Amino acid sequence: MRDVSIIGIGQTPVGEHWDKSLRHLAYDALSAAMKDANVARADALYVGNMLSGEVSGQAHLGALVADFAGLRGIEAIKVEAACASASAALRQAYIGVASGLQDVVIAVGVEKMTDDVGSRLTSGLASAADADYEVVHGVSFVALNALVMQRYLHEYKVSREDFAGFAINAHANGANNPNARFQAPISREEFIRSGMVAAPIGVLDASPMADGAAAVILCPTEQAREFAENPIRILGSAVATDSLSIHDRRDPLWLSAAEISSKKVYKQAGVGPEDLDFFELHDAFTIMSALSLEASGFAERGKGTWLARDGEIGKDGKVPITTQGGLKARGHPVGATGLYQVVEAIQQLRGEAGANQIENARLGMTQNIGGSGATIISHIFERLN
Amino acid sequence: MRDVSIIGIGQTPVGEHWDKSLRHLAYDALSAAMKDANVARADALYVGNMLSGEVSGQAHLGALVADFAGLRGIEAIKVEAACASASAALRQAYIGVASGLQDVVIAVGVEKMTDDVGSRLTSGLASAADADYEVVHGVSFVALNALVMQRYLHEYKVSREDFAGFAINAHANGANNPNARFQAPISREEFIRSGMVAAPIGVLDASPMADGAAAVILCPTEQAREFAENPIRILGSAVATDSLSIHDRRDPLWLSAAEISSKKVYKQAGVGPEDLDFFELHDAFTIMSALSLEASGFAERGKGTWLARDGEIGKDGKVPITTQGGLKARGHPVGATGLYQVVEAIQQLRGEAGANQIENARLGMTQNIGGSGATIISHIFERLN
Repeated sequence: MRDVSIIGIGQTPVGEHWDKSLRHLAYDALSAAMKDANVARADALYVGNMLSGEVSGQAHLGALVADFAGLRGIEAIKVEAACASASAALRQAYIGVASGLQDVVIAVGVEKMTDDVGSRLTSGLASAADADYEVVHGVSFVALNALVMQRYLHEYKVSREDFAGFAINAHANGANNPNARFQAPISREEFIRSGMVAAPIGVLDASPMADGAAAVILCPTEQAREFAENPIRILGSAVATDSLSIHDRRDPLWLSAAEISSKKVYKQAGVGPEDLDFFELHDAFTIMSALSLEASGFAERGKGTWLARDGEIGKDGKVPITTQGGLKARGHPVGATGLYQVVEAIQQLRGEAGANQIENARLGMTQNIGGSGATIISHIFERLN
Repeated sequence: MRDVSIIGIGQTPVGEHWDKSLRHLAYDALSAAMKDANVARADALYVGNMLSGEVSGQAHLGALVADFAGLRGIEAIKVEAACASASAALRQAYIGVASGLQDVVIAVGVEKMTDDVGSRLTSGLASAADADYEVVHGVSFVALNALVMQRYLHEYKVSREDFAGFAINAHANGANNPNARFQAPISREEFIRSGMVAAPIGVLDASPMADGAAAVILCPTEQAREFAENPIRILGSAVATDSLSIHDRRDPLWLSAAEISSKKVYKQAGVGPEDLDFFELHDAFTIMSALSLEASGFAERGKGTWLARDGEIGKDGKVPITTQGGLKARGHPVGATGLYQVVEAIQQLRGEAGANQIENARLGMTQNIGGSGATIISHIFERLN
């Protein structure tokens, strides 16, 4: 098994790209990453996407993106794991390089959500949940998360306001990220006053839908310096799953797949949560930030919000999270999000994170969540220089 | 890189499974394969599927199937490459085992097409083609293939009837396959008289939609005999791509991705087309059989139908194809088809193909096509005993 590194990154701004189709967005991110890596060809392409079939009437994105990127003929496959699709693409790219079958591999995540001519976005997003046992009752995806949050408030005696810190931190960081969908800070009062989407989830608890694409280029670590001055090593990579249905889990407030996948990457990387300089978690809703911190070993059960309250999630805190705005402020183009997290992690490790730079960041983790926790994919990255 | 073998196979009958959902179908195939391989657990699961989002409102099949199969927690991902999705799942499973990261891996293909409550099947199938440059003009997927066939008739001076042999052979073999959707032979007269779907493609040129699932279990060849008496080695595995749009190819009558992927597997396996005992090709339409035979080195350009005319595609011919009925008679549950082909190839190599058994079959190839040729995945298998 070969050691694998990332030698190039690319992203489009997150937003409403009315003038660009799926293939254009994917190309923009992919070509930027290839340029960054100084590569003109690739052995394989993995495309992460969730909704192109429902929203754009387009499947078969592997071949489509390969062709449009001038890579006609190469091996190209689309992978899907709901909102964890882009990390799943990275995972397959990682395995491909590790195997020795593929040398230079592209992983790109792309999603186009604003161009929803058939009004299938809400039902499309709900397809991340269990169609036969959850969605059949009419519940939307945000409503499922609201049920979890309501239970959390009840069980752990915290209030909706205790989640404010997650949104405030994300928006503060998004304000410094030129690619973020929202680049304005928010106040605690704005958070408290924000309208309900599905109680207790308010507008400022929820990440916005968006269009976007992000890409990385991988190669064997031993070849990485031929391409890049500052390759970033993938120290750990793990996928874990759980039931799609929340009611079918032993504990609806415990992300068992986050626990399994984070323990796997800690073991593979030989580190613990205390060694990480930052953690790009999946804040689709503020409740998911708390659950992710708890199941991944950063906080005790029921105390995830304490880190936000105590100012520990900012760039000088114990566990900096959503360092470039997270899903909440950078935006959440679902099938692309996992690779935005990774691109931002690489920026931190290269020292290219601008005003959001964490000083001397050497080791970082990303965690991408599909559905309400049914697929959770964690990666740990290390600066080589 | 580790050598990889298949130690278990499973399939459901192909047909209209009104009483079974996606997860039940996948489970039936997967559990049969696990039983066949004598394994109770797996390190990873790859699910091939094309249409679950559009037709059943269900994405996220990796975690869904893993959980329903009693494998909650394991790594599980869905892969999609239109009608080549199941072979793409096998490809990822192969890479996973080859890499050393995963030991026992399941690949399952599943599709549910008859339960099309939203009437999205035709548009769903068309999403294999280019939405922006082909489907936007109102063309259906069968109509695209009809344009290719019409061009073929013109260019090579053959007639519609010259394709009869493909359908007759498929139905003759399907008659001996208890899992086939159609188990009755057809005559040349029935083929000629059959009604047009999209001229010149008639009903008996076209494969039927269906529900079904097929699965295989993989492990490193050096461990294969711990599980199975008769493991089958994967001697070659390759994915190649082309433009989705037919009008965008240099030659609409040449499956460039079939040429690339077959040359790759021949090279990897160290064999040529003349060495193969059979070839499970992708006869979604009879025209695709001819094009596949030509681009994969079995027939000269424009002479693919000659093999059918000369009786060379039956089990005693030079190139036995669609040996258990092919897509035409076994049926074409699109995202599952590639693994039906593989399961049938393994049956041949194990000597378990019943009345369709090819005597002393040692080496066989499968080829699965996504779209009108934009993704083509070939595998070569070898009997070890």
